[in-house]
Amino acid sequence: MLNAGPVDILVVEDNDSDCASIVEALQRSIPASPVVAVRDGTEALEFLFARGLAMPGVDGFSVLEAIRSSDPEAMLTLTPVVVFTDSSDFNDVHKCYCYGANSYIVKPVRFSDFQSVVETISQYWIKHNIRSV
Amino acid sequence: MLNAGPVDILVVEDNDSDCASIVEALQRSIPASPVVAVRDGTEALEFLFARGLAMPGVDGFSVLEAIRSSDPEAMLTLTPVVVFTDSSDFNDVHKCYCYGANSYIVKPVRFSDFQSVVETISQYWIKHNIRSV
Repeated sequence: MLNAGPVDILVVEDNDSDCASIVEALQRSIPASPVVAVRDGTEALEFLFARGLAMPGVDGFSVLEAIRSSDPEAMLTLTPVVVFTDSSDFNDVHKCYCYGANSYIVKPVRFSDFQSVVETISQYWIKHNIRSV
Repeated sequence: MLNAGPVDILVVEDNDSDCASIVEALQRSIPASPVVAVRDGTEALEFLFARGLAMPGVDGFSVLEAIRSSDPEAMLTLTPVVVFTDSSDFNDVHKCYCYGANSYIVKPVRFSDFQSVVETISQYWIKHNIRSV
């Protein structure tokens, strides 16, 4: 976890190299936006809901489900969720939207494209999109 | 209506000047993507569901509701919807997300910014985002 204060973006990424690239691109693209990075769904739930680490192996779908079905008081229900993934499998795309993802983007293979797409994502969602909370 | 074939983007805009600016920016930004423009919610429902024009005064919320609650066979349920509006009222933002909008963006006042933001929206959703259908 790279930050413990209020955050604009939570990165959930179990690939250390991809995680470092994403965080670096975010910090360059939107330096004023605090970013937190966690390794997996379990840590994401712990961060979002202050849950204990008793739920190992939580996948992205479960995190999405927890966010969308959470107590509105927690102000997470309508938080934008962008799935950024290696999978371009139709079933994964469909399932993510069914679980409430706002957007689904496949990771480019080339490093420069990867960085550029992370910047595009962050610019769009932090600079242009208006959040509900 | 500017196009009658298969489309990538449906623009619903009752302000003629804004509509022309949006379509122009889309055609410049993503020339290979067919665009249809309609004037209001009634025409949007007619286009999306081939409904008759018996429902005057349909607002954006009703169109969103119709899209999200539509028959999955119609392949519209998970279609990305970007609200692009003059309103930055918190209640409108909140309501749009509750009705299933993927993203909410306030129209910039300056013409050059307006064009630039439309290009950003189109690049993001057509070039980067993967749709379910």
